[in-house]
Parts: sequence; structure tokens; C-alpha cells
Amino acid sequence: MGELRDACGRVRSIQVILELALLDVKPGLESDFEAAFARASSIISSMEGYVSHELQRCIENPGRYVLLVRWKRLSDHTEGFRGSKEYQEWKRLLHHFYDPVPTVEHFESIGSVGR
Amino acid sequence: MGELRDACGRVRSIQVILELALLDVKPGLESDFEAAFARASSIISSMEGYVSHELQRCIENPGRYVLLVRWKRLSDHTEGFRGSKEYQEWKRLLHHFYDPVPTVEHFESIGSVGR
Repeated sequence: MGELRDACGRVRSIQVILELALLDVKPGLESDFEAAFARASSIISSMEGYVSHELQRCIENPGRYVLLVRWKRLSDHTEGFRGSKEYQEWKRLLHHFYDPVPTVEHFESIGSVGR
Repeated sequence: MGELRDACGRVRSIQVILELALLDVKPGLESDFEAAFARASSIISSMEGYVSHELQRCIENPGRYVLLVRWKRLSDHTEGFRGSKEYQEWKRLLHHFYDPVPTVEHFESIGSVGR
């Protein structure tokens, strides 16, 4: 589930798709990666179907990050974003930091079990 | 970042720790696991320092789930929950579904970069 604000500013829960990527950044490049990600954030957040994202850093392994992106539909990520010209710029900014190449998976709510 | 409602019902962002566990459930036991998790949810949500949790199922690999739990402090999970009698019941309900034993990692926000 995700949250969006309606026109009255109230928070509404919506069914969204969760994209999850564990990102292992090459040693010593963590600060450069974080700076590049700050620039890249505006790319993903401008895409059709984007709901929210968060990048967090691992406490046990500081070279590891998790990127969680919420999309309205799976195809907003797999077709819309990945097929866009903006994705080429996203890749150019970020992909050279990763080793190994991250595996990206998508998850969906299983209803009332989740919370 | 996480969200809590204050006494007025307004949503407040707070700095929290994200626990992330990728759970691979033994083939054929997915429905039983989801039923057990529904029962176990009330255990974790009653713990000191618990903020929120969500369980989501992988689209590409339906035997895989991700559990995201947000805690006020790292020690609320690693010491408080894991050291509690409630954790013994949580383990009894859930751990026999997993193969392999999941790796649990904790993440924290890196500030304005994340969103």
C-alpha cells in the first residue's frame, strides 16, 4: 500500500506496486553515488505512474543501499520508465556505481495480511 | 522516513530504522505462511518502538516475500523484539516456512537524498 494526498490534503491509501533494488556500490564511491542519486531523483519522480521513492543505506554493510520505488502499475516501471529517454540519463548517472549489477524485483500487497 | 499520526490526526514524518527481510517460503506453503503471518502481525505491532510493517509478495517469484518493518530505534528490533518472549512465539509461527533462513538487514535514511 502507498499513500497519496487528495485535494483536501487528506492521506489516502492506494494499491501500488513496490519496486525493490538492493544496490551494492563500489567501495569508496558511496559519497559520489549519493550525490548522483540526489540529481537523479528528479528524473524518476517526474515519470508517469510514479508514487514515491526512498533510498536508504545499510547499517550492517555501508556499501549497500536499498531503493524502494512505488508505482501505480507494474508497467509504469517496466515499460514506461525503462522505455523512456529519461531512463537513459538515469542509467548514465547511476549504473556505473554498482557492482554487481543489481537485481530488481517487484512486489504487491497481499491485502489485509500485510498490516 | 516513516509516518505517524499525531493527536490531531495529522501525519508527521519521523526518522526511523527500516528492517528488511527477503523471505523465501518453501514451495506450496505460501497460503499457510500468509495465514500464519496474519496471526503473527499482532505480535510485532504490539512491540515497543514498532512504527509500521508491510508484507508484500514478489511478482516475478511468488514464493518470495519482502517484510519491511519500521522501528523507532535499531535496538527496538535487535534487543527489544529479539530478546522478548513474544519473539519466541513469532519464530514458532513463522520460521519453519523459510528456506533458506532469511538474512535481515537494517537501513537508515541518508537525508534529503532519499526523496
